[in-house]
Amino acid sequence: MRATLMYAADDVRVEDVADPWIHQPTDAVVRVVLSCVCGSDLWPYKSLVPTDTPRHMGHEFLGVVEETGSEVRGLRSGDVVVAPFTYSDNTCEYCREGLHTSCVHGGQWGVKGVDGGQGQAVRVPYADGTLVKLPVGEDSALLPDLLTLSDVLCTGYHAARTAGVEKGDSVTVIGDGAVGLSAVISARLLGAEQIILMGRHRTRTDLGRDFGATDVVADRGEEGVARVKELTGGKGTRRVLECVGLKDSVVQGFGAVRDGGTISRVGAPQFTDVPFGFRDFLRNITLTGGVAPARAYIEELMPHVLDGSIRPGRVFDRTLGLEDIAEGYRAMNDRDALKVLIRP
Amino acid sequence: MRATLMYAADDVRVEDVADPWIHQPTDAVVRVVLSCVCGSDLWPYKSLVPTDTPRHMGHEFLGVVEETGSEVRGLRSGDVVVAPFTYSDNTCEYCREGLHTSCVHGGQWGVKGVDGGQGQAVRVPYADGTLVKLPVGEDSALLPDLLTLSDVLCTGYHAARTAGVEKGDSVTVIGDGAVGLSAVISARLLGAEQIILMGRHRTRTDLGRDFGATDVVADRGEEGVARVKELTGGKGTRRVLECVGLKDSVVQGFGAVRDGGTISRVGAPQFTDVPFGFRDFLRNITLTGGVAPARAYIEELMPHVLDGSIRPGRVFDRTLGLEDIAEGYRAMNDRDALKVLIRP
Repeated sequence: MRATLMYAADDVRVEDVADPWIHQPTDAVVRVVLSCVCGSDLWPYKSLVPTDTPRHMGHEFLGVVEETGSEVRGLRSGDVVVAPFTYSDNTCEYCREGLHTSCVHGGQWGVKGVDGGQGQAVRVPYADGTLVKLPVGEDSALLPDLLTLSDVLCTGYHAARTAGVEKGDSVTVIGDGAVGLSAVISARLLGAEQIILMGRHRTRTDLGRDFGATDVVADRGEEGVARVKELTGGKGTRRVLECVGLKDSVVQGFGAVRDGGTISRVGAPQFTDVPFGFRDFLRNITLTGGVAPARAYIEELMPHVLDGSIRPGRVFDRTLGLEDIAEGYRAMNDRDALKVLIRP
Repeated sequence: MRATLMYAADDVRVEDVADPWIHQPTDAVVRVVLSCVCGSDLWPYKSLVPTDTPRHMGHEFLGVVEETGSEVRGLRSGDVVVAPFTYSDNTCEYCREGLHTSCVHGGQWGVKGVDGGQGQAVRVPYADGTLVKLPVGEDSALLPDLLTLSDVLCTGYHAARTAGVEKGDSVTVIGDGAVGLSAVISARLLGAEQIILMGRHRTRTDLGRDFGATDVVADRGEEGVARVKELTGGKGTRRVLECVGLKDSVVQGFGAVRDGGTISRVGAPQFTDVPFGFRDFLRNITLTGGVAPARAYIEELMPHVLDGSIRPGRVFDRTLGLEDIAEGYRAMNDRDALKVLIRP
């Protein structure tokens, strides 16, 4: 089959790789119908040291079950399914708590002999635990929206949930990328009254307003924080959803959060030390979040997608065929595209 | 009156200062019956640069109301009261949320013309909001236990509460000082099943066992973390209560906490950057805590002290007269004493 491999920064290729097959009786093979490029794929795209053992890319996909191992009980050939961005058994003590990203049998797509999602098919470990059936056909117009359950919507939702967003809350969302916009959708879904979106790309922040942002702050740093304070009676918001992953964004979060408030970060941190000393200790600030256990949220969010009350698939602003995926990486890296949908 | 002044590191004196009087109609004057020395008093004791305007020391006291301003409604002369370690109006939006340390009218003892607690009397701003009546006489044997409501017990309790300790939980307490031991009491009170106390001072950890610690780990750093892992099936505890305030202790906390768990720190951080990068992001660790809003917890904890079900006053292992308080600082700094009670 054809699949996406990354050989170095700025060197993404689509090549022939071995077709997936059932290794374990708990595996399934899924033919990919839709996948996409993630903001986190851009980190290696910017920095990967040239290698002869290229990375198998992609961790967001939905498709059709083609084959199941002998121990797979809940799925059969022909089922339309979505995969969360890590696989998991859905039965261990972490999974039972909703922390599927710490599953004792879990792992990542594209490593250790498991296929990446940006290809024509994927061997799915722990298929019963990992995959969630979609009650639609593979020609459904809702597929792009449903694909966001794989990662981006669940990641935004994880930010909102772990920050404790509740009815009537005030929320700052830092970052107007696809995760930030998903965090806006999620904050709105949980009943936030004031949602301040910090971002400077007009088409993205306009989409953020459509998704429920009540205010947009284009300024960054101290100016941005001052603007959030102005919008909140000088106090800041109770919740901050940090959807970028850079140190400056977290610092901005500490500036924007109200005393006693919570910052949840879901942008993978590109730094090791968080400036979180005595001043914010005196203010009783909480720093939470982390990698999103998408699997935990899929069933909860799916009804909102199916009934059209949220349209998270609007974050996709370009669609490419698999053979052209390198152009998708380029477009996202150059901010020509917000998020790119891939049809194998 | 006599009061404690600090002129420099290692230079604590008891001197004559002006008697307190009612400045504002919301003030009260309290004659101090009991105060004590706090672990946080030792930071300036180690480091204060010599000064001609000495610090007025002390922020933990209980005593008897001597005089009230014209607008004080809930207190009268003769009431026995305890003061939390910051004053607050108890009516602003932060106070109503239980975050009295962020009170819009609040402040600290010993600064801006307000007396410190290590003296014979104190002018108390916002007396109705700040002081809590004690249903005992000034000769009660429970006074040392009740004095811990001023700071140390509430600080330990804040750690346990913000960490989310609940029935059946596993908890690591880092630090065998008075706050750490209070955190053990608090974790037990909230129903923790396993309480691992990390500390190496045998008399203190023995008291910790009396308070409810199920295990004691004397090792520090990686060895200490390895021991906590051994005691928890390799996983760590769901909650970590960091009661020291040094970077090494927080690092130890990240080592001891289970995936998806929470570290609450109540030891005033003596550092600015927290090592909290990608690894712990992947584990969904939360860092919470902060300065304890003691006022929020006094009524909740007092019944447990009054009925003798907890004996937090056992952290006091020495009693000195006010004139000898410098010896109390020395003893605590040299770890000859755990916590020193002062009788003016």
